[in-house]
Amino acid sequence: MKIALLGSGNVATHLSKALIKAGYPVMQVWSRKENNAIDLALQIGANSISDCKEIKDSIDVVILAVTDDAIENVASQIPQKEGRLVLHTSGTTPLNVLEKYFDSCGVLYPLQTFSKTADLDFQTIPICIEANNIKAENQLELIAGKISSKVEKLDSPSRAILHISAVFACNFTNYFYSVAQELLEGVQLNFDLLRPLIQETADKAMLNLPFEVQTGPAKRNDQLTMNKHLALLKDNSYLQGLYSSISQGIVKMYQPNLGGE
Amino acid sequence: MKIALLGSGNVATHLSKALIKAGYPVMQVWSRKENNAIDLALQIGANSISDCKEIKDSIDVVILAVTDDAIENVASQIPQKEGRLVLHTSGTTPLNVLEKYFDSCGVLYPLQTFSKTADLDFQTIPICIEANNIKAENQLELIAGKISSKVEKLDSPSRAILHISAVFACNFTNYFYSVAQELLEGVQLNFDLLRPLIQETADKAMLNLPFEVQTGPAKRNDQLTMNKHLALLKDNSYLQGLYSSISQGIVKMYQPNLGGE
Repeated sequence: MKIALLGSGNVATHLSKALIKAGYPVMQVWSRKENNAIDLALQIGANSISDCKEIKDSIDVVILAVTDDAIENVASQIPQKEGRLVLHTSGTTPLNVLEKYFDSCGVLYPLQTFSKTADLDFQTIPICIEANNIKAENQLELIAGKISSKVEKLDSPSRAILHISAVFACNFTNYFYSVAQELLEGVQLNFDLLRPLIQETADKAMLNLPFEVQTGPAKRNDQLTMNKHLALLKDNSYLQGLYSSISQGIVKMYQPNLGGE
Repeated sequence: MKIALLGSGNVATHLSKALIKAGYPVMQVWSRKENNAIDLALQIGANSISDCKEIKDSIDVVILAVTDDAIENVASQIPQKEGRLVLHTSGTTPLNVLEKYFDSCGVLYPLQTFSKTADLDFQTIPICIEANNIKAENQLELIAGKISSKVEKLDSPSRAILHISAVFACNFTNYFYSVAQELLEGVQLNFDLLRPLIQETADKAMLNLPFEVQTGPAKRNDQLTMNKHLALLKDNSYLQGLYSSISQGIVKMYQPNLGGE
């Protein structure tokens, strides 16, 4: 099963390495940014191409790991070939964007945050798959099962909700780490101070449902502390608004169970 | 150095165990909820008392691990005794709340999220200390240094900012895990799916500054995906508002560096 990879970002980079490790030859790499395609192709021993039309007839699977807004345009440039499977890797883009162009298509959505620097064990990364026919689904299940031990069949609407939940649990969470970092810098404190807390917060969510291990002033409906915090954030109306809105959400979530020391 | 502990919540429970492990005898336990005081006293081999006035003359250190809004009232009931050190454990409450009542007082603020269930290694927990005189500071530094290897001197205003940053990095983060859990439950998906992502997000913040490893649609200023997410959240105006507001914060944070595939 020969693969062509379209894209050269974090997902494309990590996914191509995982595919090769699993024994799938990635033969061709294309990217909107040609230099990135050349770099990635060099790293993984593939050929870079400057135009999607150069995808060879011998390619069995084409994987689009490009930004969501580029998927349809790139898809429209891929040469049609009977029996070829075309996949995208997006959480939010529905499968039917590809169905317009290809008889056999699917989605391979790895649920992880990919950075250029971090090395990842793909085997532990959940991969959500969807295909437009049973043959494509079997093919996709085989590929996904070789690179990860956690393969989940998921339709497009559920995948979109999963993607939103990942934005909250990962992207927004990391942004709040950054907000904390900025607040600490304002009083010349090192981010190191917060690292054990961040680690423990994530560790608790590995063993518990987060609802059960919430802590903090809002959980206790400790209005005194929340008001002090809001007063201290008075010069930053954006953070003050966030603090207030999220605290209200937490108070509401736990209101029926309020009490405790 | 004999200790009396006022409070029986998560901080009181974990702190008293750490103190005993470090060789400090916790002799007396009081709590607003008498049954909880009896329980904790039994667990740690101390005596429970039903009134702060019962604190013995032989007690050298009194630790108030009660909610912020109770600190002043409880402090006012502690018998005065020369040479006795009185501490609270609050992030946001300034030291001067205790100075009204005691010649020798301080703050011992352990920066961690404490749950009844999780066992914690106190040695890795940053402890921020502050005292109102040099003798008290030396005493406090000695105690804190026995239970943790990360002791930091911090004045009340800086500690309050640290507390706010901890609310963002821990409490709000865990709330967003819960939001994600609720979104997943809406489409019958298991929270397990998100756990590797949550783990990796925290792991990256151990080795990098969070600003440097942000990912997601807002980081890429991917308006198409953000608009799709907002449309999917249309029945939950609260989450829609949060999504929009936080995404705008992220876009603004990275605007100067926008670009990339």
